[in-house]
Amino acid sequence: MKIYDISMEIHPDMPVYKDLESKKPTFKNVANFKDNSHYETDVTMNVHSGTHVDFNLHMVESGSTSSDAKIEQYISEARVFDLSYVLESITKENLTNLAIRKGDFVIFKTRNSQDEGFNPNFVFVAESAAKYLAEIGIKGVGIDALGIERSQAGHPTHKALMEKQIIILEGLRLAHIRSGSYTLIALPLKLRGLDASPVRAILLGN
Amino acid sequence: MKIYDISMEIHPDMPVYKDLESKKPTFKNVANFKDNSHYETDVTMNVHSGTHVDFNLHMVESGSTSSDAKIEQYISEARVFDLSYVLESITKENLTNLAIRKGDFVIFKTRNSQDEGFNPNFVFVAESAAKYLAEIGIKGVGIDALGIERSQAGHPTHKALMEKQIIILEGLRLAHIRSGSYTLIALPLKLRGLDASPVRAILLGN
Ligand SMILES: [Zn+2]
Ligand SMILES: [Zn+2]
Repeated sequence: MKIYDISMEIHPDMPVYKDLESKKPTFKNVANFKDNSHYETDVTMNVHSGTHVDFNLHMVESGSTSSDAKIEQYISEARVFDLSYVLESITKENLTNLAIRKGDFVIFKTRNSQDEGFNPNFVFVAESAAKYLAEIGIKGVGIDALGIERSQAGHPTHKALMEKQIIILEGLRLAHIRSGSYTLIALPLKLRGLDASPVRAILLGN
Repeated sequence: MKIYDISMEIHPDMPVYKDLESKKPTFKNVANFKDNSHYETDVTMNVHSGTHVDFNLHMVESGSTSSDAKIEQYISEARVFDLSYVLESITKENLTNLAIRKGDFVIFKTRNSQDEGFNPNFVFVAESAAKYLAEIGIKGVGIDALGIERSQAGHPTHKALMEKQIIILEGLRLAHIRSGSYTLIALPLKLRGLDASPVRAILLGN
């Protein structure tokens, strides 16, 4: 059994959504060996920077939050699909022949995993695909983009998925991952009442 | 197989080391449904608040950091020992009859798991116990205290463990956990070069 790390490295110069400075983490040294006998850091970060899970509150007023997360759902069999041929957005048509089943946790590997920095033209999940996945009743969907959709008015992709309590896992790094079945571990931090959580996401497989 | 959550909840009023205000997390709302069409939060937290793993840099100048963490070590068979009878500190004498073996990940459940707030007299791992565990060559040690030692001059407990690259997992919540064998999952975030990382720690067992 091998362990594959599929997480982004978190640091002050990391790629963030739209490359907004406000979304870059800051590391503040608050104790060090000059002034103290130990070393400590305060981290500030937007909960949507790096590899993270979204909770409904992100897009739905009074929606469910990190406090409602059922941790057993974040350890799951998962199927990785290589959709690197898609150039713009993943549509229903790209999914219908993949035999996606109710309860699946699907992970989409796209050409985004080749990007070093933030690419404003990142491949995303189109509304038609989100509605198709919601209809099937999948457990979760992961993608190698910082957003599962680009800024579409009304956020229809997020909302179609959230309506069905489908887990949304964003910011994966999948360049080194082949299509196939794995065990995904992507446990949210036990944050009270928030709209997202950073995670260390890994795949266990052969 | 059951999943046991052994993590502290992270929130602005959570118990922190010595109850220092500077160690309490802050949640800053940066987008909401009044002013935006979505909701987002920035979190600021000391990396030693809540359930977390320490890296050597915390106590050793130029010591190894989160960037050096081998993730496969944070998924491990682990043995929980109930030491609730210990009142002050866990000493070598408390450990010698437990048949701890090389490569074990040991987790000490103490009366700390009964505390609601920060208790300055928390039970800790004494230097004699740390040296004993280092000599055996365990893989890791977890405890239900925000520090594996109280402020002992020179931090001998941390240093004895860190010298042997033994994982230190702090801030566990174990009131609901029985002695025995489990699978521990406590993956650090992929933070670049830091002295600790918050984790969502769980045990898998019967
Ligand atoms: Zn997000
Ligand atoms: Zn610590």
